[in-house]
Amino acid sequence: MPSISQRGIIMPSSPIRKLVPYSDAAKARGLRVFHLNIGQPDILSPDVALSAVKNAQIPIIEYTHSAGMPEYRRKLSRYYERVGIDLTPDQMLVTCGGSEAVLFAFLSCLDPLDEIIIPEPFYANYEAFAAAAGACVVPITSTIDSGFALPPIEEFEKVITHKTKAIMICNPNNPTGYLYSKAEMLQLRELIKKHDLFLICDEVYREFCYDGARYFSSMYLKDVEQNVIMVDSVSKRYSECGLRIGLLATKNKDVIASSLKLAQARLCPPTFGQIAAMASLDVPEEYFEAMNKEYCRRRNFLLDGLNKIPGVFSPMPRGAFYTVARLPIDDSEKFCIWLLDEFSYNNQTIMLAPAAGFYSNRTLGKNEVRIAYCLKIEDLEIALDLLARALRAYPGRTPESLSPLTEHERRLRAMS
Amino acid sequence: MPSISQRGIIMPSSPIRKLVPYSDAAKARGLRVFHLNIGQPDILSPDVALSAVKNAQIPIIEYTHSAGMPEYRRKLSRYYERVGIDLTPDQMLVTCGGSEAVLFAFLSCLDPLDEIIIPEPFYANYEAFAAAAGACVVPITSTIDSGFALPPIEEFEKVITHKTKAIMICNPNNPTGYLYSKAEMLQLRELIKKHDLFLICDEVYREFCYDGARYFSSMYLKDVEQNVIMVDSVSKRYSECGLRIGLLATKNKDVIASSLKLAQARLCPPTFGQIAAMASLDVPEEYFEAMNKEYCRRRNFLLDGLNKIPGVFSPMPRGAFYTVARLPIDDSEKFCIWLLDEFSYNNQTIMLAPAAGFYSNRTLGKNEVRIAYCLKIEDLEIALDLLARALRAYPGRTPESLSPLTEHERRLRAMS
Repeated sequence: MPSISQRGIIMPSSPIRKLVPYSDAAKARGLRVFHLNIGQPDILSPDVALSAVKNAQIPIIEYTHSAGMPEYRRKLSRYYERVGIDLTPDQMLVTCGGSEAVLFAFLSCLDPLDEIIIPEPFYANYEAFAAAAGACVVPITSTIDSGFALPPIEEFEKVITHKTKAIMICNPNNPTGYLYSKAEMLQLRELIKKHDLFLICDEVYREFCYDGARYFSSMYLKDVEQNVIMVDSVSKRYSECGLRIGLLATKNKDVIASSLKLAQARLCPPTFGQIAAMASLDVPEEYFEAMNKEYCRRRNFLLDGLNKIPGVFSPMPRGAFYTVARLPIDDSEKFCIWLLDEFSYNNQTIMLAPAAGFYSNRTLGKNEVRIAYCLKIEDLEIALDLLARALRAYPGRTPESLSPLTEHERRLRAMS
Repeated sequence: MPSISQRGIIMPSSPIRKLVPYSDAAKARGLRVFHLNIGQPDILSPDVALSAVKNAQIPIIEYTHSAGMPEYRRKLSRYYERVGIDLTPDQMLVTCGGSEAVLFAFLSCLDPLDEIIIPEPFYANYEAFAAAAGACVVPITSTIDSGFALPPIEEFEKVITHKTKAIMICNPNNPTGYLYSKAEMLQLRELIKKHDLFLICDEVYREFCYDGARYFSSMYLKDVEQNVIMVDSVSKRYSECGLRIGLLATKNKDVIASSLKLAQARLCPPTFGQIAAMASLDVPEEYFEAMNKEYCRRRNFLLDGLNKIPGVFSPMPRGAFYTVARLPIDDSEKFCIWLLDEFSYNNQTIMLAPAAGFYSNRTLGKNEVRIAYCLKIEDLEIALDLLARALRAYPGRTPESLSPLTEHERRLRAMS
């Protein structure tokens, strides 16, 4: 029997999806499982999108342009103009989800053994795409105690070598919900300019900013236009995860040319997805306002509830729909499995994502979990109650003293 | 400005798509261009597929299972049973087009600098995916004079080294239309068994076999189940290129596990595509019979016409909807550009795919083109007339003596 590639062996499993067999088993035993583990929005997809698919007159479902339908890219250009980003249709490639945009960016920028620096915890699939490209992720740790702010630039400087080709961030951040400030973005600008690095910025949560916070796109950075690659997607913005429509955008013609060769090899993005995504651009501002208000309510409710549970701490996220919480437990993967395998209350339990999977350094995040707030308030209420009860019953609970509140935490808690 | 990856630089452009700017310009000048260059079927997509999409009740377009909807895979299992292939749902991964299945297979089997042997001419995008994986394609030349039959096994043996990890074929073949016989498949079986290699077999044209020829799948091969990976797609079978629904299938659990990690990283295949593809499995046998009859008529008409043009030779293909023809010309890329740039008759011209792009060895195929017969007979008739006129007018025409008919060709011609 021939052996598979080393790449195939070392590639990490999705930390979010690897617990699925346990939740399947829990459901098979009749439990109701509250999914705080995945970022699958429960907001309805826009009517205009669904109608566009229903009314599409396409007797032959043909290949489209490899870079995406020209009319969709033209319309996207106007959407970006509204959010202050200047992009022409030939600076965009429509991809099969934001995932493919990350893959194209990595394959176009990174050769085997090249390094890409990513603040951790980070979206775990970046590591799988880096492995696909044969490149190495070099993590810089951001901490829960600083609310997952950008680590000091000196930390980046320390690990930059001749192999470093790029820095990647996700803004607003998955898994932490952290929203990078303009000041932090300008610091990154200096850094990539100084070392002539690519900055790959995953901006799929652009519309999810709270407390009136202003979003600062990587595309706003001046004088580094050739260095910046933006990844985007309709999945979260319009609650259209299954369409598989994303975007790679850059003013760097070489990156576009290389990515276009990859895009041509895979022929085209999905036709129905493009039709729905194009129609979605017509949703009115109120769609986002209502969505934003709803997520903000959920966030406030969740964070308030989390920080009231003894021994639990989570800093207040200002974007996306995730937060990372520290729990008084020995090992979050064990805890998450125990929740599905052994715990239940009133025939219900919760599913969380162990945070260790979001750290490249696997010794970190052992007592942290990522919580997505894509559930209605009434479900979040039950889920919080279940979490509190579970933490009381969990045999691997650590003494409070092992995870005390720092002064900073008390302050952050008070702010929330 | 940071430089892109070496991989991005060396990756070949699609030979089929790189002439598009010339045909766009020809159309802008008011010419009608007959597209013999692409395998975009003109057969209508099945009604059941279009209706399924129209009637889908999905208020939230959610992620589906990373391996593809379980009900779709169960239904696929029954389709494969009908064509004599035994596959369970957990031996399949639904992919974003057959393209993604090739990419997953390469990434799962090949490490950087590993080698994969492919008989040339071959579908050009295999080379792009190999470049993405950092692996090397080692070509074995099949010749127009043998009708593009499988090269002798000794030719494979000559190039097998410790770096060889896999052999790939496309059956029926794109670009040649060649249908591998059972005897040839059994030869390949011996070879992969002897050297413990993967056999990656692209079977997307399974339903396109003519003259009552029997299709022999790589999945029929006994005792090498752990070595065989099958690539499949609905694009050609149901005229659904834009759905982007393909399949990777294998009984090798390690390949499935590795590919599933890649599949999880990119989350899921498109929802609407899966809905349409699942419904397509209900099309009656008559759909294929009618399609087959139509393509067979076109093939006969095209081949007869081609071989009547002085200096032109094309062996009779028995599968897919392509043929490779030898023309009395100096350089097929120059000729193809000239057709779009300088030639016209009655305000019409044709677009062909230069065959050099399908050879890894770029000195080969210089006087060959790939012709797709996805046009109606009346259009093929005009196209053939245009080709004959163009060959008379083309300044780079070679003397007949440079490309004489061999005895073998005369025989093949007589057979057609």
